[in-house]
Amino acid sequence: MSVEKLKSSLRTVPDFPIKGILFWDVTTLFKDADCLRELIDDLYEIYKDKGITKVVGLESRGFVVGPALAVRLGAGFVMARKPGKLPADTYSESYQKEYGTDTIEIHKDAIGPDDVVLVHDDLLATGGTVGAATRLVRKYFQPKDVMINFIIEIDELEGRKALPQDVEVTSVIHV
Amino acid sequence: MSVEKLKSSLRTVPDFPIKGILFWDVTTLFKDADCLRELIDDLYEIYKDKGITKVVGLESRGFVVGPALAVRLGAGFVMARKPGKLPADTYSESYQKEYGTDTIEIHKDAIGPDDVVLVHDDLLATGGTVGAATRLVRKYFQPKDVMINFIIEIDELEGRKALPQDVEVTSVIHV
Repeated sequence: MSVEKLKSSLRTVPDFPIKGILFWDVTTLFKDADCLRELIDDLYEIYKDKGITKVVGLESRGFVVGPALAVRLGAGFVMARKPGKLPADTYSESYQKEYGTDTIEIHKDAIGPDDVVLVHDDLLATGGTVGAATRLVRKYFQPKDVMINFIIEIDELEGRKALPQDVEVTSVIHV
Repeated sequence: MSVEKLKSSLRTVPDFPIKGILFWDVTTLFKDADCLRELIDDLYEIYKDKGITKVVGLESRGFVVGPALAVRLGAGFVMARKPGKLPADTYSESYQKEYGTDTIEIHKDAIGPDDVVLVHDDLLATGGTVGAATRLVRKYFQPKDVMINFIIEIDELEGRKALPQDVEVTSVIHV
């Protein structure tokens, strides 16, 4: 098993969610027991010595691998959700989308100043959502350190430019 | 650590998402590294000898623990999603809600006839969504066996009545 095997387990779907977009579908990796386990093993190897205490996963494909990695790392898991989905008091951060703005929220009691945080999502495309989640984590919680992780990064979209430039960003699969 | 410890890690939020509902918030369990690990350990002990090959998690809180359990069991993970969220061809099943109907979808290539399936969600309340997901799995994929799991079951709502009566249902925490 290798990153190439993981990459070949992905499926591309043309014109989803809208015409002209080639969608990288990670469900074909998730459903394959060997690939799912390999992905968690690979992520664990990357992050095992980083002292991570909280993994923040982005709604909703970031909820799939974030918690499994958190369990392996001995960390807790925190949901970053769309507005109105979290029941208790939240901090929120807005970001520009192609048309209009969007907002991401995290519970106020989710992270503390002693935490080392890994922000995780399945895919880095334009980077807007993860950039906002990372800004939110730093601004309101001021944890010891923050890192960012993706399963897949679409290199040509240059989404890293939308992320804080002083944060370590690692993607398992580059397409 | 015990089920009582897991139960005490939950938070109740009155009047969420609407007035009159007492919401059982599992995010306070997820963010606690010890509780999250204990929950996965407890679930593993319940299901380790059941031959499970696919865990189906329901959008979106069922995505959190389903995949971590799948990894521990050596199984794959399958997302059951709201309409229009999955990119490839899907089967779908509708169910009654208090006002109108709702629909749940699973990719057509997600499960095979040799699979043993565990359908997982965070909470059993009225049981409509999990009931529909279980019917969908049986009707279209005809796997060898199907089981249902919840982290939390609200006993007084009697949600089990909305689930197929010949399926094994296990909840870790009863409230």
